[in-house]
Parts: sequence; C-alpha cells; structure tokens
Amino acid sequence: MREDQNCQWRVARRPDGNVVRDDFLYTEEEIPEPGDGEFLLKTYYVNLAPVMRMYMSGESAAGEKPLAIGDVIHGRAVAEVIKSRHPEFEVGDFVQGQCGWQTYKVSKGTAQEKFRKLPDLGMSYSVALGTLGMTGFSAYFGFIDCGEPKKNDVVVVSGAAGGVGTHVVQLAKIFGCKVIGIAGGTGKCELVRSIGCDEVIDYKAGSIAEQIAAACPDGIDLYFDNVGGATLSACLDNLRMHSRIVLCGSISEYLLDEPFGLTNYTRLRRTNSTMQGFFIYNHIDDFDRAEGDMAEWLKSGQLRPVEHVFDGFESLPDALASLYTGSNYGIALVRIRRGPYDQGN
Amino acid sequence: MREDQNCQWRVARRPDGNVVRDDFLYTEEEIPEPGDGEFLLKTYYVNLAPVMRMYMSGESAAGEKPLAIGDVIHGRAVAEVIKSRHPEFEVGDFVQGQCGWQTYKVSKGTAQEKFRKLPDLGMSYSVALGTLGMTGFSAYFGFIDCGEPKKNDVVVVSGAAGGVGTHVVQLAKIFGCKVIGIAGGTGKCELVRSIGCDEVIDYKAGSIAEQIAAACPDGIDLYFDNVGGATLSACLDNLRMHSRIVLCGSISEYLLDEPFGLTNYTRLRRTNSTMQGFFIYNHIDDFDRAEGDMAEWLKSGQLRPVEHVFDGFESLPDALASLYTGSNYGIALVRIRRGPYDQGN
Repeated sequence: MREDQNCQWRVARRPDGNVVRDDFLYTEEEIPEPGDGEFLLKTYYVNLAPVMRMYMSGESAAGEKPLAIGDVIHGRAVAEVIKSRHPEFEVGDFVQGQCGWQTYKVSKGTAQEKFRKLPDLGMSYSVALGTLGMTGFSAYFGFIDCGEPKKNDVVVVSGAAGGVGTHVVQLAKIFGCKVIGIAGGTGKCELVRSIGCDEVIDYKAGSIAEQIAAACPDGIDLYFDNVGGATLSACLDNLRMHSRIVLCGSISEYLLDEPFGLTNYTRLRRTNSTMQGFFIYNHIDDFDRAEGDMAEWLKSGQLRPVEHVFDGFESLPDALASLYTGSNYGIALVRIRRGPYDQGN
Repeated sequence: MREDQNCQWRVARRPDGNVVRDDFLYTEEEIPEPGDGEFLLKTYYVNLAPVMRMYMSGESAAGEKPLAIGDVIHGRAVAEVIKSRHPEFEVGDFVQGQCGWQTYKVSKGTAQEKFRKLPDLGMSYSVALGTLGMTGFSAYFGFIDCGEPKKNDVVVVSGAAGGVGTHVVQLAKIFGCKVIGIAGGTGKCELVRSIGCDEVIDYKAGSIAEQIAAACPDGIDLYFDNVGGATLSACLDNLRMHSRIVLCGSISEYLLDEPFGLTNYTRLRRTNSTMQGFFIYNHIDDFDRAEGDMAEWLKSGQLRPVEHVFDGFESLPDALASLYTGSNYGIALVRIRRGPYDQGN
C-alpha cells in the first residue's frame, strides 16, 4: 500500500463458491481533491461482512447498489476527515460509513453513505465497526428489545464466539442472566468462557440435543439463535413456559442441500412461548439509545469488544474469504492504519 | 333416557382408533340425594371435545384424573341446581362445570369441578360451553391478547368453520380487520362467509399456497393457526413486515405418519415477525374480562354462536366420534334437555 496513492480493491470477476484472490483487482489512483461541499476521508478500519460476497456477485443487498465488474467493492469503514469544504464535517473528525475498499475517499456526505461522527471514548475507533456498529446493535436490539431478558433467566446463545454472539453473551451477564454459550472447537469455547459464559457447549464434541438438555436441566427462558437448524430444534425441546426465541441468523443452514425442516415448532404452543425474527434496520430510530448504552458499558468495562483484526490493506481478500470458513473469533475487520488509542498487536 | 333415573355413559373399553359405540357402556342409577354441604344438579348440555378420547384411553389430560374401565366419562356441562344443602348454590342457579356424561349429579362444589354460576343473558345457557367457555376464551385470548389486532389488518384464520375459528372470524370483524377464512368443502365455506369473512378459501378446492397468495396480494398481518402444516407454511411465505402468527392448534398434523417439517420459519426473521403459542389455562386470571367482553358482544348481536347441536343423551357416543371426522360446524355439544330460552331445532 502506497501512502501517497488511493489504493483500491475492485471486482475482477464474479465469485464461484467462496471468494479467491483472482476475484479481486488491485488498483492505485491519485488521492482525490474535495470540491465545494465535499470532504476527503482517510480510511483506518474496514468492516468484513458475509454480505460482501453478495455485492461481488452483482446482487443488490443491504441497501447498496449492485456492483459492476471493475467497481470498488462496498464496505463500511472508520475514517478521518483530512480535508473539508463541507459545513458539517471538520478536519480531525472520525466518522463511520460507506467508504468502500479503498484508502481514501471523497464524499458529499449523502444519506446513502450514512456517515456518522464518532464520539471519542478513549479507545480505538474500531469499536464503531463492532460494538457500536451493526453487529453490536444487532445483539442489543435482538437481546434486549426482542428477548426481554429478566434477572436469573437461563439464556442460551448459539454462535457465541461470533460477532453478535460475543456481545449477546456479555449483555446477558450485564442483565444478571445465567448464560450457556454454544460454539465449535476448543479455542472458540475457551473464548466464550473467558467473556463470562456460565456453561459452554462445544457442538463439535457430541450431540447438541443431549448437551443442551444436560446444560439446562430446568429449561431455557431465552434462546438467541444465530445458527438455526438442529440447535434451534433442540432448544425448542427444552423451552420453559413463557419463553422467548430470538431469530438472528441461520448460518448452519446456508450450506445444506435442502432446507432444514423444523418439526417441533408446536412446542411454542405447549409452552406458551414466542419465536421472533428481527431485522436490524427496523430499529434505526433507536440507534442513539443503543449507542449510548453500549458506550457506557464499554467505558465501565462491562462490555469488552472481541475483535479479529487482519492487518493491512493487502489482507482484505483473504480476510473476506476467512469469513465463510468459520475460523474467525468475534468481529472481523481489517486495519488499514493504526489510529488513535490503537494499542493492538 | 328415563327422567326418573340418573342415566350415564361409562367407559366400556379403551378405544382403538376413533371411538365406536361398543367403547361405551350405558347405565341407569337412582337419582342421588344431596347430603349436608352438597347440591343436586340436572344436566342440560354436555360439551364435546377432542380430549375426551384421551380420557377414555386412560390418559390424564386437561387436569382431570385418568378414567378406569367402568367410570363415568368426564365432560363439562351446563346444569341447573334442583336441590341444595350448600351455602353458595341455590335452587334455580344455572352453572357450568365438570358433571360428566350423566343426567344428574351430586356435587360438593369442589375446586376440581370448577362450577361457575352463569349470568342470565336472555339466551340459551348453551353459550356457556362455547362463546363463554374454553372455546370462546381460546379465540378471545389467542386473537386479542396474543394477536394484538389493529383496524384494517389482513387476518387469515384456518379451521375457520370450527369452534374456535368461528369466534376468531367474528372477533376480527369486530376489530375492523379484513378476514380471510380457510375451511374445507362448500358447506363449511358458506358458513364461514355467512359469519362475515371477506374472502373464503376452500383448502379442498386447490393448492392452499396459491389460494393464500391470491387472497392476500399485500400479505398477511395476523395468521390465527388452528391447523399447522402446509397452511402454516404458506402463511409464513405471505407475511407482511411486523406480522404475528398465533399457534392455537395443529389438527392437520395429528394424522400424519411423520411430523411436518417447517422449512420456512426463517421468514419470521426476514419480516421481523413473531410466532406465538398459547395455552388457554395460562390466561385463567383474565377469564372475567373475557366473559364480560364476549357477553357484551353476544347481547349486541356482534357475536353469534355457531353451534352444532346433537339432540338427546343417547347421541353422546356418536357425537363424540363425529369430532374426529371433521364433519361438525362450530361448537359441538349435546342437548340433554331443552333449557330456558332454548328455541333451537
């Protein structure tokens, strides 16, 4: 990466299966100059999300326009305003929004780019892509607004080592719940325990149904579902009366040849329980509340971001590919440059 | 039936498949005399419910003790107090509670029998077994408390010609909703239309998925599910954003060799919707509210009980068998004697 150039990753071709290096085209351009009503951004951290493969495939998703071959890839990023001819953005502001996979960007501050100024919390601005971004907010609204947790509730979280999962586990402890985390493999299970889970289930180590039944002898009050499939079915079998299931993701089903058939949904009837789906952008009017609460918990140390940081602009293609192999812990992001308070490895 | 005897139906043997006449034993006894703290009841109407086959099979269900061979069959009934040595029940009171399949009964008024005095609404006391009984209350709490209907909501009701369904359809019209009723066969569909459905789907007349999609071009706000299976799946495919599904029954699945696998429950996530089970006895503290509201709607004529009345004590075994063949409309009950305001056929 050259500091005196705007470095970019573009779509070279449509991916077939998981993304590979030849799907990406690296380019360099002159750093652009902001015109009247524009500002120039310097990128620090780029978010990684499963939706990016859809962008590269030419699909319209998450409100972004479809990418043509040769376009710079979409990506939300943390960036610093380094030149400004825009009345609302000043040099030195840190913002989060749609920068794309590039090291500089000129913006008019349009609604489509959704740039939001970031508060100085005395910690790395990378939190804006995790705890204070869509991932953290998904945990916040899914767990609190949909799950309605109460003290001493028995809470089960699948995908507990993932971006959303690591936040839900910690929120559940903040709310005084007993938390059972489900993850795959020793390393992820150790992580899940280290962030406060009372019990940890390794779904690769035995029957998920037997392990859930054993871990919840008195049943489940709230199941936060990131995976769907057999894990969801096993949790239905162990519901207490008046329980809640929050559907956030169904990643276990993406790779199945046939969709999973849920045969025991009638357990909702027998237990007077509720299964609720949610979509983060339906809570957009309450984002300030989520940001305020999450920032307080970050400052007090009750919430610790778990970040899987890939280093350097060059790592973006490989980092994206790793998302689909399940090898990441917590939030996946790429650090382009080290920013304020960034003491990471 | 002899008026001067207590006539009874007892368990002759355990049913194998649907109940048949030889599973029942008819007996006559002297009409009992109430002792101190007791009262004598004369039965008018007996409720019919699918759970009765479970009773006869020796299973414990709905809080009643298992029946031995030779026991009088359990059944909720409307009865009149004709003698009393009990401080709280007076001669002339009409009550609803656990009388069993018999024409007279002596009671101590225990909690187990759940006798409640009935208000005089100027209409047949048979309403106490339908609109003002567990069937009507299931419709009330399922539709209103769980479904949270709003004016102009698009409401779909399956099993719309059944006891619960006929009530939900009428409640939905009271709440100003657009109602699509699903039933099987021309006769039931005519009934469903006559009680106010805006559109009627005959599930025997074509693909349920295609018919639901055609009847709800703008999607469904509230689906009240009495049948489960393919109908539930089709409604999931047609949900609007922020919709509600209330699970009340899954009668389409009882006769399947394998349980139905719901593959599209993830539609709840994409539409930010909720699927909620409910169990009527969890709402027991609110029964007075339901009774008050339903009685008002009965008196105003906004709610019309749809009763399938079998005549005479002798008809009880055949009436029960008919429950499992889907031939009944509305609430199924047996009239032992004609009571006040009973102008029926």
